[in-house]
Amino acid sequence: MDEFGYTTGIEVRYRDLDTMGHVNNAVYATYLEQARIAYFRDVIGIPSDEINGVIAHLELDYHRSITGGDDVTVGVRVTDIGTTSITMQHEIRAGDEVAATGETVQVVFDESGDPTEIPPELRDRIATHEGF
Amino acid sequence: MDEFGYTTGIEVRYRDLDTMGHVNNAVYATYLEQARIAYFRDVIGIPSDEINGVIAHLELDYHRSITGGDDVTVGVRVTDIGTTSITMQHEIRAGDEVAATGETVQVVFDESGDPTEIPPELRDRIATHEGF
Amino acid sequence: MDEFGYTTGIEVRYRDLDTMGHVNNAVYATYLEQARIAYFRDVIGIPSDEINGVIAHLELDYHRSITGGDDVTVGVRVTDIGTTSITMQHEIRAGDEVAATGETVQVVFDESGDPTEIPPELRDRIATHEGF
Amino acid sequence: MDEFGYTTGIEVRYRDLDTMGHVNNAVYATYLEQARIAYFRDVIGIPSDEINGVIAHLELDYHRSITGGDDVTVGVRVTDIGTTSITMQHEIRAGDEVAATGETVQVVFDESGDPTEIPPELRDRIATHEGF
Repeated sequence: MDEFGYTTGIEVRYRDLDTMGHVNNAVYATYLEQARIAYFRDVIGIPSDEINGVIAHLELDYHRSITGGDDVTVGVRVTDIGTTSITMQHEIRAGDEVAATGETVQVVFDESGDPTEIPPELRDRIATHEGF
Repeated sequence: MDEFGYTTGIEVRYRDLDTMGHVNNAVYATYLEQARIAYFRDVIGIPSDEINGVIAHLELDYHRSITGGDDVTVGVRVTDIGTTSITMQHEIRAGDEVAATGETVQVVFDESGDPTEIPPELRDRIATHEGF
Repeated sequence: MDEFGYTTGIEVRYRDLDTMGHVNNAVYATYLEQARIAYFRDVIGIPSDEINGVIAHLELDYHRSITGGDDVTVGVRVTDIGTTSITMQHEIRAGDEVAATGETVQVVFDESGDPTEIPPELRDRIATHEGF
Repeated sequence: MDEFGYTTGIEVRYRDLDTMGHVNNAVYATYLEQARIAYFRDVIGIPSDEINGVIAHLELDYHRSITGGDDVTVGVRVTDIGTTSITMQHEIRAGDEVAATGETVQVVFDESGDPTEIPPELRDRIATHEGF
């Protein structure tokens, strides 16, 4: 998982499992959300609640099921910073195996609810970390 | 929403809302799931728990936020039936507005957990309904 | 269910089910929450987001499991109004059977986060409905 | 928290928070569930999915709200073992403060779905750990 400069762990909860004993497909989106928040906190040093970001696009490819005993990690990297949006790629791993890959696009809004330019400080910190 | 031959209602729960008072992005995937199950039950006449389907791909484009008071409906149509997979398109509406569009691909598995051919009866019923 | 002057329906979601195919025990608390909100909206005519209430006590007795196909309703009645708190009793039914009974106590807070007297208008409307 | 021989950590998720930025009341029941499963795994050495237990009673007293940044732990101890049921007490802490206390009663079922005697091995291990 060398391509991911940041990886965080997720505790699978019993409540995440569906009737087949697998983590439900919608819960993968919650795992991405947790990883995104952790990335902003740990890597960028900006609490995500200070960034008024909203998810505009979500894409997930499911490769294998995740069960209660799995050791789950999520890799996160920013692949693009547009004027008002940040594109991230994600890899959810269960042990050594890729359980899913995903992409999210979040748009930053100003206080009146319109898309706004990404603050330069945020842009700089991401670019520095990702080596843009 | 003429292009969707089937539409079902979703009750927004307070638990679906996030700190901003909007339905959380992951919950949209749950709304698609409910709509998918309702489509199989109401349109195809096959309870979805009799179809051993697993989501292989999920894609969501978020157009506007959904709040607790919104009247939410989800349109569902099958756009493609492959050998082992069913592709669906979805439109989540809040009142008169499109809140999100989505696509899911589900793969049908046999009892040993391998992708298997879609049962002819299921294929026929979907094709008849969708006018393939 | 004559003792409950108000009853509301709940749509069971696939996401509510656990690995045994039963509605998870924590989700019953979400059903009570939905029923509480519906009671305030339909019976008292005050949107619950205008009442700054917080749950102080929750109690649930589980009588039978609820599955995906069940027709679920929740009965709600206020059994006590204290100076700052409202006690409610609940009955969750699956079809004709009692699936669970519950009690919640919610405390009303003012803007600085301290328990505050229940607004007289709210108290009057509840008392009128419940026949106190 | 000396009275709790076992304590486990819980990662608060953004999805656990409600519109006020506090962990939703129903999610506390999920935290108890996670702690219960961890207790069986870590202390008793029996995976909880090998014990066919169902929650019969849940009680929670909420003392303070939990937010996204809180460091949450749950204390677990068994206070009573009946013929077919196990009673547990729980303390949810946010940092140094008690956020909630709770009690659960779970009943062990046999394969035909009837309450059954608690297996002697399970009873012995709990009694040894709890010093009964």
